[in-house]
Amino acid sequence: MKSIIFSLPGNEGMAKSIAHKLGVQIGSLRTRRFPDQESYLRFETPIEGQKVILVCALDRPDKKFLPLLFAAAAARDLGAAEIGLVAPYLAYMRQDRRFQPGEAVTSKHFASALGQWIDWLVTIDPHLHRLTSLSEIYAVRSAVAHAAPAISAWIRDSIKSPVLVGPDSESEQWVSVVAKNAGAPFLVLEKTRRGDRDVEVSVPDVEQWRNHTPVLVDDIISTARTMIETIRHLRAAGLEPPVCVGVHAVFADDAYIELEAAGAGRVVTTNSIAHESNEIDVAPLLAEGVQNVLD
Amino acid sequence: MKSIIFSLPGNEGMAKSIAHKLGVQIGSLRTRRFPDQESYLRFETPIEGQKVILVCALDRPDKKFLPLLFAAAAARDLGAAEIGLVAPYLAYMRQDRRFQPGEAVTSKHFASALGQWIDWLVTIDPHLHRLTSLSEIYAVRSAVAHAAPAISAWIRDSIKSPVLVGPDSESEQWVSVVAKNAGAPFLVLEKTRRGDRDVEVSVPDVEQWRNHTPVLVDDIISTARTMIETIRHLRAAGLEPPVCVGVHAVFADDAYIELEAAGAGRVVTTNSIAHESNEIDVAPLLAEGVQNVLD
Repeated sequence: MKSIIFSLPGNEGMAKSIAHKLGVQIGSLRTRRFPDQESYLRFETPIEGQKVILVCALDRPDKKFLPLLFAAAAARDLGAAEIGLVAPYLAYMRQDRRFQPGEAVTSKHFASALGQWIDWLVTIDPHLHRLTSLSEIYAVRSAVAHAAPAISAWIRDSIKSPVLVGPDSESEQWVSVVAKNAGAPFLVLEKTRRGDRDVEVSVPDVEQWRNHTPVLVDDIISTARTMIETIRHLRAAGLEPPVCVGVHAVFADDAYIELEAAGAGRVVTTNSIAHESNEIDVAPLLAEGVQNVLD
Repeated sequence: MKSIIFSLPGNEGMAKSIAHKLGVQIGSLRTRRFPDQESYLRFETPIEGQKVILVCALDRPDKKFLPLLFAAAAARDLGAAEIGLVAPYLAYMRQDRRFQPGEAVTSKHFASALGQWIDWLVTIDPHLHRLTSLSEIYAVRSAVAHAAPAISAWIRDSIKSPVLVGPDSESEQWVSVVAKNAGAPFLVLEKTRRGDRDVEVSVPDVEQWRNHTPVLVDDIISTARTMIETIRHLRAAGLEPPVCVGVHAVFADDAYIELEAAGAGRVVTTNSIAHESNEIDVAPLLAEGVQNVLD
């Protein structure tokens, strides 16, 4: 059975890369908004009897949800044999339980609302807080790709004398893995509490890292508060301007500008969300995920 | 069983009016957006075992859909006995069939996506193009209120010597009904085709209407193109600046400013969508609709 890939607006580059990797056709999905802000969609390439693959990064999800749902529903209506979604960034992974009485558990509701229109889902590094697997909220089959090896490879190939930096002891576990795969050392900032509101943060063995380039890695860069705070500590300790690496370039409001202004030597992300900071291509990882669910 | 009303953002006034008319409690639904533009919702008033009524006008629907879906899903999750939606303006009523191959039939898909989260739906004057009833696309029970009597009453009470104006012969049927109920005369513009691109539009018996106030009525004022065109013909014929009345104040882009600039003497709408032009209160009609579905 033939597969065919379509991109929702803003995902053209990623869709093209995945199509190329998989050797499948890329189709044309026309979308526009009427003056009253309702959405119009049209599949300009026939899809009857085919496996339809939709590509849509779900950052800023509220305005993207209905067009995506319409694409999936129309594909079904038009006789697609199967409908899959590649969401390089998956939304609503934070509120996975009710912290206060009366709260909407949006992780669960979003998964339920989205899942019913598709047959499978492929994403990269979903923000699994308290969940251990996507299958706890998504009933459809899914494949999860991981950017860590691609990030390690990029650090190894692009940064001279890197030292991976973990902002706190909780981060040590994954920072050590990324560092190991990059063939680089790592350090973790130390917090010393001096009083209720007085916490001193210091760089251990600071002299050892003077001629290294600090590298900060996080899954989502949204407000960038943690990275900005960490940059301040590193700069105060007299280290070089750090390289900030993120999997998902969400960048809420002015976070990108603020991160550069705070003294980041360089800001680098994967192309899971299209952004000027994209330097690490995750299309091959997503294509592999698609291959797994299609097989 | 107790009923309780909640408003989605922007619908506070309408929710309050309907609650007052029905004599039911108004509850507090807190909503906000995280910096990454995901939505947060919390019912701050208990709803377990109660009939929950959500109020949400669905103009500019794409960004409103997920928060509304989350409210309905959370209400169900929190043990609401029943979930109803008052949508004074209902979205996606235009594309009710496939005009070109491959198009998404958004009327059908939107109704299916929305309908599954609610038990009933109340709206006012949905734009039923080719459909004869909401039940053709909505499986849930519904009540439809009509603004025409309220508009006729407003014209009768507010406009001295009104003459209702239909922009074309197709509009004659409903213009004549609004006119009759307002106790006012009506006229319909005449089109004379002089060539392929040359259509002359004239006001019949123009001398008769010199001392009347023309009143234009439409269901949705979106781009306002038809009204602006009609105003030009009336002004060219030397009539008074017309009063423009719309049920639904969608006003795409700068339509409101353009309508006033084109020479509308006054622009008046119902409060189905909150807008500065609202002068006709449809809350009693919607409350009556809710009463019908609750009984």
